[in-house]
Amino acid sequence: MPSLFDNLPPDLAEEFFETLWKTDSVKIERIVSKGHASPPGFWYDQEEDEFVLVVRGSAGLRFEGREDIVELRAGDWINIRAHVRHRVEWTDPAGETVWLAVFSRRESRS
Amino acid sequence: MPSLFDNLPPDLAEEFFETLWKTDSVKIERIVSKGHASPPGFWYDQEEDEFVLVVRGSAGLRFEGREDIVELRAGDWINIRAHVRHRVEWTDPAGETVWLAVFSRRESRS
Repeated sequence: MPSLFDNLPPDLAEEFFETLWKTDSVKIERIVSKGHASPPGFWYDQEEDEFVLVVRGSAGLRFEGREDIVELRAGDWINIRAHVRHRVEWTDPAGETVWLAVFSRRESRS
Repeated sequence: MPSLFDNLPPDLAEEFFETLWKTDSVKIERIVSKGHASPPGFWYDQEEDEFVLVVRGSAGLRFEGREDIVELRAGDWINIRAHVRHRVEWTDPAGETVWLAVFSRRESRS
């Protein structure tokens, strides 16, 4: 069976994104980071809701308008609603951080 | 942040299912098993596609018409298309197996 921990890219000069499953309604992505952060001043602002889980490693997320950094360790997950602006402040520089991200579109807001 | 490893049910007489996120198009579920298996003769036959990840522990899945058992260990994932009949043959009896399952509907088959 494919593992999230297999085939980790040897060269992580850039963050690694891999789509594991994609349909009209959902995209499931593996992300591998190692010391990466979003560029200065950059904010993600997405059309889709995102559910993101740190499977290995650790990371810090910042949300627009909040001072604190949300720390995620292995097993931690968070829901990021569409258009909630956020950025990756840091990821563990000592080893790979492996994320599972699920992007989905809502037909009706709840 | 919520963790998949927090609040593991102390009594796992039955498998534990918890919905983490649900919209019209997607449902994300945490499942906790400990030695559980599907009842004899029972097959899951689902309307939705399922992407399932073993985050901790291990499990064996059987698919209808196949003799082998697909073994999943921490980090392993599999896609189970809608209506592909399958069952849980075993889960680790020694400790909790924590699954993340993503159920989604496709508008158009690809």
